[in-house]
Amino acid sequence: MSPSSLDELIEALRCLPGVGPKSAQRMAYHLLQRDQRGAARLAVAMRRALEVLRHCERCNTFSEDAICPRCVNPRRDAGLLCVVEMPADLAMIEQTQSYNGLYYVLMGRVSPLDGVGPRELKLDKLLARATDGSVREVILATNFTNEGEATAHTLATLLAARGIAVSRLSRGVPVGGELEHTDIGTIAQALVERRSL
Amino acid sequence: MSPSSLDELIEALRCLPGVGPKSAQRMAYHLLQRDQRGAARLAVAMRRALEVLRHCERCNTFSEDAICPRCVNPRRDAGLLCVVEMPADLAMIEQTQSYNGLYYVLMGRVSPLDGVGPRELKLDKLLARATDGSVREVILATNFTNEGEATAHTLATLLAARGIAVSRLSRGVPVGGELEHTDIGTIAQALVERRSL
Ligand SMILES: [Zn+2]
Ligand SMILES: [Zn+2]
Repeated sequence: MSPSSLDELIEALRCLPGVGPKSAQRMAYHLLQRDQRGAARLAVAMRRALEVLRHCERCNTFSEDAICPRCVNPRRDAGLLCVVEMPADLAMIEQTQSYNGLYYVLMGRVSPLDGVGPRELKLDKLLARATDGSVREVILATNFTNEGEATAHTLATLLAARGIAVSRLSRGVPVGGELEHTDIGTIAQALVERRSL
Repeated sequence: MSPSSLDELIEALRCLPGVGPKSAQRMAYHLLQRDQRGAARLAVAMRRALEVLRHCERCNTFSEDAICPRCVNPRRDAGLLCVVEMPADLAMIEQTQSYNGLYYVLMGRVSPLDGVGPRELKLDKLLARATDGSVREVILATNFTNEGEATAHTLATLLAARGIAVSRLSRGVPVGGELEHTDIGTIAQALVERRSL
């Protein structure tokens, strides 16, 4: 007997990661009862993001332009390419202020259990980028989790086969830890102490 | 350096209850990267819900009509009015199949710490409904939390002053418990054993 537009909203909220039926219901009531302005703003932001965001042709991160501002910044060292899993990891490295090269954002990691292999990660795009003639070293900055390490290992093999110098963040990052939850000083240290592979 | 439409989506997601900056970021990445269809559907559902949902003039629950289908159902006993905090509580009582009266949904509870008093809860609307001549008994089915009990006490006082018979669900519901998380049998028992106030 509950209105279909309410049911549909509750059901649609479940596309959010970690949101089950009870919390979707709670969210819907909250939005309708206490924050209609927030809900309207969220609907607009979602539509706009879907419309304007794409992946930068060079670094693969979310961008409103074909090539993002960072990739065309002439003050960046184009010889260094730092590979991270997600944009949040990139943001952490930027915060260290100890890296002035460019990035490649995988938007994921090799994860056999989730059916994500080299093909799903579109590693071809990274390999093309790394061999475009401008890159002298690729720094692997995937997480030090099992999946991040497997991703780094896969990439190291593929890049070495193409004659590209590859390095990995030093293990200043705690084993099993994720960049997003690591303090900036540790990440800065790991950048300085990166080891050749 | 991250695109403004992405920042705006992350910021807008924080209107959801229990969603902080990190989980808003995770949600935005997930929607853009893995579930654009779900995000589009959510944006549409949110706009539609905001457009078409209002509060039933009689029972105050979310409704697409001025008066909801339940309130105009002639097979319901119009002499009984059960007062609950939220639509989820109404749904739980319906599931017991042991109540055939009508409802009034407060859409909240008296909560001095959150600045919600009788005025914010618009108890006038309930009092008008309870004294419209059709109601012979009001059953208070607010939660058995401190706030729910305070709400029931406030309502009992206001309704008794107007000569209306008032009852409360029996304490079959565990003290401190919430209807939404109570098993249906216990709720059915509490309905049967409701005590006059
Ligand atoms: Zn870029
Ligand atoms: Zn109604």
